[in-house]
Amino acid sequence: MRTQVAIIGAGPAGLMLAQLLHSKGIESVILESRTRAEIEETIRAGVLEQGTADLMRELGVADRMNRLGQVHDGIEFRFHRKGHRINLKELTGGKRVTIYAQHEVLKDLISARIATGGEILFDVGDVRLLDVDTELPRVQFRRHKDGELEELVCDFIAGCDGFHGPSRQHIPQRVRTEYSEVFPMSWLGILAEAPPSSPELIYAHHDRGFALVSTRSPEIQRIYLQVDAHDDLANWSDDRIWSELHRRLETDDGWTLIEGPIIQKSIVGMRSFVCDPMQYGRLFLAGDAAHIVPPTGAKGLNLAVSDVVVLAKGIETYYKQGNAEWLQAYSEICLRRVWKAERFSNYMTSLLHRHANHSPFQRRIQLAELDYVTSSPVGLASIAENYVGLPIDWRRS
Amino acid sequence: MRTQVAIIGAGPAGLMLAQLLHSKGIESVILESRTRAEIEETIRAGVLEQGTADLMRELGVADRMNRLGQVHDGIEFRFHRKGHRINLKELTGGKRVTIYAQHEVLKDLISARIATGGEILFDVGDVRLLDVDTELPRVQFRRHKDGELEELVCDFIAGCDGFHGPSRQHIPQRVRTEYSEVFPMSWLGILAEAPPSSPELIYAHHDRGFALVSTRSPEIQRIYLQVDAHDDLANWSDDRIWSELHRRLETDDGWTLIEGPIIQKSIVGMRSFVCDPMQYGRLFLAGDAAHIVPPTGAKGLNLAVSDVVVLAKGIETYYKQGNAEWLQAYSEICLRRVWKAERFSNYMTSLLHRHANHSPFQRRIQLAELDYVTSSPVGLASIAENYVGLPIDWRRS
Repeated sequence: MRTQVAIIGAGPAGLMLAQLLHSKGIESVILESRTRAEIEETIRAGVLEQGTADLMRELGVADRMNRLGQVHDGIEFRFHRKGHRINLKELTGGKRVTIYAQHEVLKDLISARIATGGEILFDVGDVRLLDVDTELPRVQFRRHKDGELEELVCDFIAGCDGFHGPSRQHIPQRVRTEYSEVFPMSWLGILAEAPPSSPELIYAHHDRGFALVSTRSPEIQRIYLQVDAHDDLANWSDDRIWSELHRRLETDDGWTLIEGPIIQKSIVGMRSFVCDPMQYGRLFLAGDAAHIVPPTGAKGLNLAVSDVVVLAKGIETYYKQGNAEWLQAYSEICLRRVWKAERFSNYMTSLLHRHANHSPFQRRIQLAELDYVTSSPVGLASIAENYVGLPIDWRRS
Repeated sequence: MRTQVAIIGAGPAGLMLAQLLHSKGIESVILESRTRAEIEETIRAGVLEQGTADLMRELGVADRMNRLGQVHDGIEFRFHRKGHRINLKELTGGKRVTIYAQHEVLKDLISARIATGGEILFDVGDVRLLDVDTELPRVQFRRHKDGELEELVCDFIAGCDGFHGPSRQHIPQRVRTEYSEVFPMSWLGILAEAPPSSPELIYAHHDRGFALVSTRSPEIQRIYLQVDAHDDLANWSDDRIWSELHRRLETDDGWTLIEGPIIQKSIVGMRSFVCDPMQYGRLFLAGDAAHIVPPTGAKGLNLAVSDVVVLAKGIETYYKQGNAEWLQAYSEICLRRVWKAERFSNYMTSLLHRHANHSPFQRRIQLAELDYVTSSPVGLASIAENYVGLPIDWRRS
């Protein structure tokens, strides 16, 4: 089998890249080790930056998002029993976020891919990348895991296979630097059958720990609360979850959290990770394969999207102008935005959580930071511009 | 002896308070344990916020400052061999800073005090505060340290006697919470006989550590560099200081540090400290007696000034309207601004220094923060509004 771009992984990076390449007349094949059902059912993030939602529309895959997604003009920071609205739209000259679950984005991209006749193979096994540092790299794999070994020959490989995928390991260790940080807390996330408690997301800082009230649909709420790094779901009965959420979210103005049956709960760790560079020879990493952020800044999906925007431009320039300069600058351009998103995610995490290792002085500095950013127009604007997404900085050195 | 306000300490807080009270027709006596010469010769900070310089003018003590001080419209952040100007004036709607040494401010305030016939006793000994929680507090002291014990009876005591002064100890421990943080680095400061290397202050971040280029006069430069927390001046020959400064300050555009004979050098530690509350009965702390900041944000002198602006308003309202409400809110109003300045000083310290305990990930986050604040107009504006001084937030709860 021969294609122009072999894409490893049908997550947000891989599927969005395929769609971008298709829009530029460039062929690709997607290889994915999971089944389509697994991908379409895995609950993940749900906040789309303005640029991500715009791209969905440009690519013609936004019908369901336009219908089912909720455009939010603001978010709320809550602390000391009081809410502070951050008016994203006003503070950024009109930019907003769209609340639309990641697996819905994936469903839309998968059906668009299939509708355009693009090749996408689910449930493949034994994926192996070969000759990535030559001009004709190859990917070996088995269809349906027990099929025969096949080979996909291509011009480029896009490693969009997530943090645990094999692609990153093909950047030799002597070339690659990995930066990582594990945060000393986790998030317990629930889905609850109840209408939204709030029209916008609430990021609550509380002495007992962080909580985040979000929504998935008019009938389902998505809520998170900070728990210990090595906490166990068995410690968290539904009653304890609700009682803890009520305490962390309580206000003086009578706001109430709406309860409902908890239909899903899970605990996720908080980590940061960056691989530098994100490319080697004809292999380009995108999304979680190259970087992880803690969920506090809602940046994971959006970073995957900005990566592939840069990659698609590089590949397009290569084919249309025979010029590899943009491809050579791929890592540099991506990492500039990645590090700013890592910074923001790190900042939001340290701003909003309860840190067991904080001295009383550091705790007061944290409260002073909350006080500053919610009372200064400049502080508010800084949160806002990062939350709706910084532009890609296309400078090449 | 009887007065309305007994002021312990002739530093920036005490002297400025006396001048403020005088302008409102309120009497005070200043008691200072050092000699006038000691006070007028001790080299300290030198960056006046817009509000501090404005107040000097309002109080009619700005003749020398207007003549000798240098008004700066901006500062520079330097990293990766490149300067990034922060245009304070444009970013804050016209606010600037004045470079004028603290001991010059003190000289001006002392001579104004003497010119108006205000009582100011230097070189006093055995200062003791009595009955601070009654309506008639007293201060005992000896003139010239070996004189007879005298007593100053007053309505209020202003504890402006610095971090090591006795006043703070009169807030009972059961009432008082002290927050503190010692930073794991120090500053080696020099005065050098050389014209300014730069028309504006340069805050340089470098792999080898922080450096700050400032100026004291057309003939004298004030320069600092980060050294180890427990470093010794004996380790720092003049040659080593210059060679280290050249390395940390080097740019790609040929900028040069101007050398000259080093006429003074010293090492200062970096700490934060806040006492909450800043008042008890008829005793009110102001300036370093209540809070310390690391020098990175240039906030120490300016916080002393905003404290006494709040205190003078409280005392004036008490005498003119028989109303103690503003006095009761003194600590609350001051601490709101103090914590924001502590936050900014902490932020500047962590942004600009080399931290030995940083992981490679945290080091990259620090660089991303530098990149963000110097490339986003909102990031620049946040540095600028804090650097020129946030307004006093007069709300009372």
